[in-house]
Amino acid sequence: MTSRDAILAAAQRCLNADARASMTDLATAAGVGRATLHRHFSTRDELLHELGTRSLDRWQQSMRGAGVAEAIASGQAGPIEACLRDLLSRYLADFDDFGFTLTDPYLRSAPDLMERTEQLSEEETALLAAGQRAGLLRADLDPRWLSSAVYGILVAARDAVTFGRIARRDLDEYVLVTFLEGTRAR
Amino acid sequence: MTSRDAILAAAQRCLNADARASMTDLATAAGVGRATLHRHFSTRDELLHELGTRSLDRWQQSMRGAGVAEAIASGQAGPIEACLRDLLSRYLADFDDFGFTLTDPYLRSAPDLMERTEQLSEEETALLAAGQRAGLLRADLDPRWLSSAVYGILVAARDAVTFGRIARRDLDEYVLVTFLEGTRAR
Repeated sequence: MTSRDAILAAAQRCLNADARASMTDLATAAGVGRATLHRHFSTRDELLHELGTRSLDRWQQSMRGAGVAEAIASGQAGPIEACLRDLLSRYLADFDDFGFTLTDPYLRSAPDLMERTEQLSEEETALLAAGQRAGLLRADLDPRWLSSAVYGILVAARDAVTFGRIARRDLDEYVLVTFLEGTRAR
Repeated sequence: MTSRDAILAAAQRCLNADARASMTDLATAAGVGRATLHRHFSTRDELLHELGTRSLDRWQQSMRGAGVAEAIASGQAGPIEACLRDLLSRYLADFDDFGFTLTDPYLRSAPDLMERTEQLSEEETALLAAGQRAGLLRADLDPRWLSSAVYGILVAARDAVTFGRIARRDLDEYVLVTFLEGTRAR
């Protein structure tokens, strides 16, 4: 019952509530002793690395689920916009599990995780560049900046929900509208 | 020469390069021994708290320098847009000093710093709400979300420069255009 998966699930919840949670906090959250936790993960970084790997797996699954490759292949604005909307919704749905990984200092510095982050980011950038070629997205911004902007708006969304600034049910629409249309009145 | 200010300046540079830098790393960066560092700051959190306080001082100064109160009082779209542009440029200019503070887990959890963050955020939100009333910014989004979106785009900008995705000289324009106009082609 105190399997590796159960410990990781408890650790996720704990780290999303407090990004600085210690190994002691994580053991308590999982309902196990420190000795048991240490049998599974000898250091906090090792546990974080496992959660970081899972968050990148999820990112990859979200891009596959939203049909990124197919949307790029279509070369059409409609399918690319539908894919982008689906993709952002999937990212936001992953917050409950992986919100803390967006800005965790260890995960944002571990070389192997950062290398994989760059690879996944290139795939996302390819979708955004396809959106530019199809006339959906403005072409005067570097597509790698557009990918950074996606990341930034996810951090903003996590922040806004955490501080109770917007309701979870409004989040998808707020994020989509802000990213695509900007904030200027028309 | 190894004054408190000199140590803090070295710590800033070090933390911007590596958000996980240890007290030993920070002592090395400042060219002092650990004993000297500990005479000034008994814990890493104490040092971080001082840098966090200075970053919030800078935020307050940026809002004053950009004339946020005057722009709100004007109630006019033109002055509010000029103020918002000035404000974002000032935030981006502060990256070299305070980039790491945007997402540092300790600074984002210390109760007194978070309380002050909320107060400053309310002042920024008041400018954005004034922009909505003046017809500059779209009125269908909660102004507190707009403030979160400003935060998110700053994190995106820091990320994009760190990973070499855009040149520093393009940053102000990319941030402004993305925030105000969004990414959809017109």
